Formats: sequence, C-alpha cells, structure tokens
Amino acid sequence: MLEQPTLTFGEYTLVYNMLSFAIAAMIFSGLFFVLARDRVAPKYRISLVVSTLVVGIAAYHYLRIFNSWEAAYMITDAGNYIASGKPFNDAYRYIDWLLTVPLLVVELVLVIGLAKDKQSSMLTKLVIAAFLMILLGYPGEILMADSMFSMRGLWGLLSTIPFIYIVYILWVELGTAMEGQSGQVQVLFRNIRLLLLATWGFYPIVYMAPFFGWTGAESEIAIQVGYSIADVLAKAGYGVMIYAIARAKSEAEGYEVGQSAVSA
Amino acid sequence: MLEQPTLTFGEYTLVYNMLSFAIAAMIFSGLFFVLARDRVAPKYRISLVVSTLVVGIAAYHYLRIFNSWEAAYMITDAGNYIASGKPFNDAYRYIDWLLTVPLLVVELVLVIGLAKDKQSSMLTKLVIAAFLMILLGYPGEILMADSMFSMRGLWGLLSTIPFIYIVYILWVELGTAMEGQSGQVQVLFRNIRLLLLATWGFYPIVYMAPFFGWTGAESEIAIQVGYSIADVLAKAGYGVMIYAIARAKSEAEGYEVGQSAVSA
Repeated sequence: MLEQPTLTFGEYTLVYNMLSFAIAAMIFSGLFFVLARDRVAPKYRISLVVSTLVVGIAAYHYLRIFNSWEAAYMITDAGNYIASGKPFNDAYRYIDWLLTVPLLVVELVLVIGLAKDKQSSMLTKLVIAAFLMILLGYPGEILMADSMFSMRGLWGLLSTIPFIYIVYILWVELGTAMEGQSGQVQVLFRNIRLLLLATWGFYPIVYMAPFFGWTGAESEIAIQVGYSIADVLAKAGYGVMIYAIARAKSEAEGYEVGQSAVSA
Repeated sequence: MLEQPTLTFGEYTLVYNMLSFAIAAMIFSGLFFVLARDRVAPKYRISLVVSTLVVGIAAYHYLRIFNSWEAAYMITDAGNYIASGKPFNDAYRYIDWLLTVPLLVVELVLVIGLAKDKQSSMLTKLVIAAFLMILLGYPGEILMADSMFSMRGLWGLLSTIPFIYIVYILWVELGTAMEGQSGQVQVLFRNIRLLLLATWGFYPIVYMAPFFGWTGAESEIAIQVGYSIADVLAKAGYGVMIYAIARAKSEAEGYEVGQSAVSA
C-alpha cells in the first residue's frame, strides 16, 4: 500500500478530470466502433469488434479507478485533499492490461488479413508474449525499490523480454507481410506501429519512476495523467487507426458503405 | 477554487432542472440519430454517427455536472442552499468541448460531401483550429480577473483567433463549395451556420462575465442556465439540422428509405 501524498485542489482535480476524460473517450470510441461497423467490409469487422471490447474493458476499469480516486481523498477546510484512509487502488490497471493488451495485438493482426495458417501462428505468439509481458511486470510493480538493481528492477527486466519480442514481430515479420499492400495502407500501418511503440514506451518509464526518486505529489499526478493519456491513445486512438486501415482496405477492394453483404 | 454563493430554493432548482433537461435532450437526440440512420443514404450516415457521439459525450458530462451540482450544495432549515464543502466541478465542460467541438465541425464537413482530397484538408484545418480554440481558452478560464487586460483576457484573445479562422472557413471556403447544391440544401446550410455562430457566440460572453463584474448568485445561475441552453442547441439542435441536410440530399439523390444499398 502506497503512501498517499497531500494534494492541492488543482492537482486532485486534474487527475479527477483526466480519469473522467478517459472514461468518456473509451465509452464513445466504443460506440463509434459499433455504429461504424458497416462502413468496413465484413471480413474486417472482427477487428472493430475487438476494438470495442478493448475500450469497453478500459471504460469499466477507468470507472473503478475514478471511484477509487474519489474515495481515497477528502477535502480539508483549507481546500487541500488528504488521504481519507481508503487506499487508492491502482492495481485495476494491471487487470485491465492483462485483458486488453493481448486484444490490442489481435486487432492489428486481424486487420492485416494474413493467410489463415500464418495468422494463427502469429496470433498465438503475440498473445502469449503480451500476456507474459504484463504478468512479469506485476510482481515488480507492487515492490517498492529505489534502485534498478532490486527485485522490482529484475521483474521489470524480465517483462521487457516479451516486449522486445513483440516489437520484433511487428517490425520484421509483419513488416514483410505488408509489402504487397497499397501505399495508403502501408502509411497507416507504419503510423499505427509508431503509435504503439510511443504509447507502450510510456509504461516502462512510469515503472522506473521510483528508481529516479520520482515520488510524492508531483510524481503521483504525472503518473496518473500520463497513464490516462497513454491509455486513451493506445486504446481509443489505436482503435480509430485500426478502423482507418479497415476502411482503406475495404475501399480498395471495392466495398461500398451500406452493402449488406459483399463477396470479398 | 471558486466561491460558491448562497442560492435561494428557486435559483438552485432552476439550475438543477436545466441540467436535467440537458441530459434528457442529449440522450434522446442521440437515440433519434441511431434510430433514424437508415432514413439517409449510406454516404451521409457517418454524419449521424458523429452526431450520436457528440450528444453521447455531452450526456455523460451533463450527468457528471448534475451530480457535482447536487453534491456541492446542501439545503438549510430556512430553505436556502449553501455550499456543502464539496466544490462544484465545472471543468467537465472543457473536457466535453475538447472532445465535442472538433466533432461538430467534422459532422458538418462530412454531410456536405466534398471531393475526397478537399474534404481531408478541410477536416484537418478545422479540427486543429477547434482543438486550439478550446485548449487556449482553458488557462484563462481558471484564472480570476476583473479586467479585459489580464491573463484571462489574453488567453481569451488567443482562443478567439482559431474561432475567427473557423468562421472564415465555414463562410468563405465552404460557402463556395455549397454553390452547386439545391436551394433547399443551401437554406439548411445557411441556417446551420447561423445556429453555430449564435450558439458558439454565447461562450465568449460567459468567459468575459467577470470583466463586467457579473459575479455572485445571479451570474452563476445565468451562466449555468445559459450554458445548458447553448449546449442543447449547439449539439442536439445542430445534430437535428445535420440530419435534415442529410435527408434532403438523400431525397434529392433518389434514395428511398429502407433501401439496403444504393449506388451513390
């Protein structure tokens, strides 16, 4: 259980509003994926279904985090926020990631539309790696440490191995598979890979924050705000890019919006 | 943190009822956009999808504002409402606008149906301008000031630049693009632009309220009631007009309600 630093009105409210922003972003990007489903050819709709699950799961966990944040603090007469005695439960994030991170790699592989057998083996490898990445990070997350050379550092290192493996698969193996695609789809694919690297890269930085002595109110705020933005980009923003890829491929294949069925 | 003035029973209840009215307007206009989607040709449905997201996001934030209003006051034995100690969180409005204002310009551009490349450049320009407009307004909003020549005034001025740019694009550039359209569509388009100008024009007035010494209970009530009405018109009313444009264009193009596919 972490110490909860005293927060100013502005600090508390910033996190409060960012958590609320994340809830709204997740719910309504999900609504978009449902309503816009018939704008992509039937074979790409499964990616939008998976996107919907990802942001739905994230919305659920952000609601829990929001409620926990609200319960963990109480306002003083001076207008500051102090710990209420109820701990702030941040572990919701790990449960969320355990479910959503494997799904994020699934939606990307599905939208690319590889041959059936290649797709299955790619999915198996990536899902196992994503799962291991989160699982190995957790034991370190709950250990406090002020040095890289600690148990927290060791678990973090172990968790980095599957992360590097995922990056390798996406850049090398999937990169090769993309060569036959149209220019527009290749650009979109390059952008989504960069979004994934940039947003996923934020999590290990937060993980290492205690090593750099980043503790107290300011770090707590930076971590909560940073996670919220990274999650919105990595889930809702990522889903919109998956939609853009699916839409571009559907158009290239001659699919017209509103067709109830298409041979493609 | 703003001082919360003591309110009479009637003042408190007026805001309470207006916030509830806004929630109902947003939810059920959204339901209309979903249910009436197949009354417009497939290529215009994306505008109705975006309308649904806008009012959905607004409904979410009005629910939060409503709850915050309820928690921020308590009734006295004399029947007045005094601050409960929990601050009234109005910042939800900014988060709402940050998400919905860009979407409002998107739905208008999409329903006009420009050529693909022209549409992309128009969307990029308008979305960035809308985003900047909200972002630049926020730092001033949280600063109190009783003069135009203050930091609040400066941020407000900066925020006005993208606003003027948006008005310019809608009147000049989009105006030209409308010339080939039918008379009915042109009238609808003129009306929706006026609605946009009239409703969006309300926000800077509220922003400047402290400069005119409008503080205390009466201003608080006027601001909350005014925002609620402006938001209902600018989101739900605007969405209905977008629907009317989409419907008129669908009819003009020979689309019949319930057709599952159309060549257009």
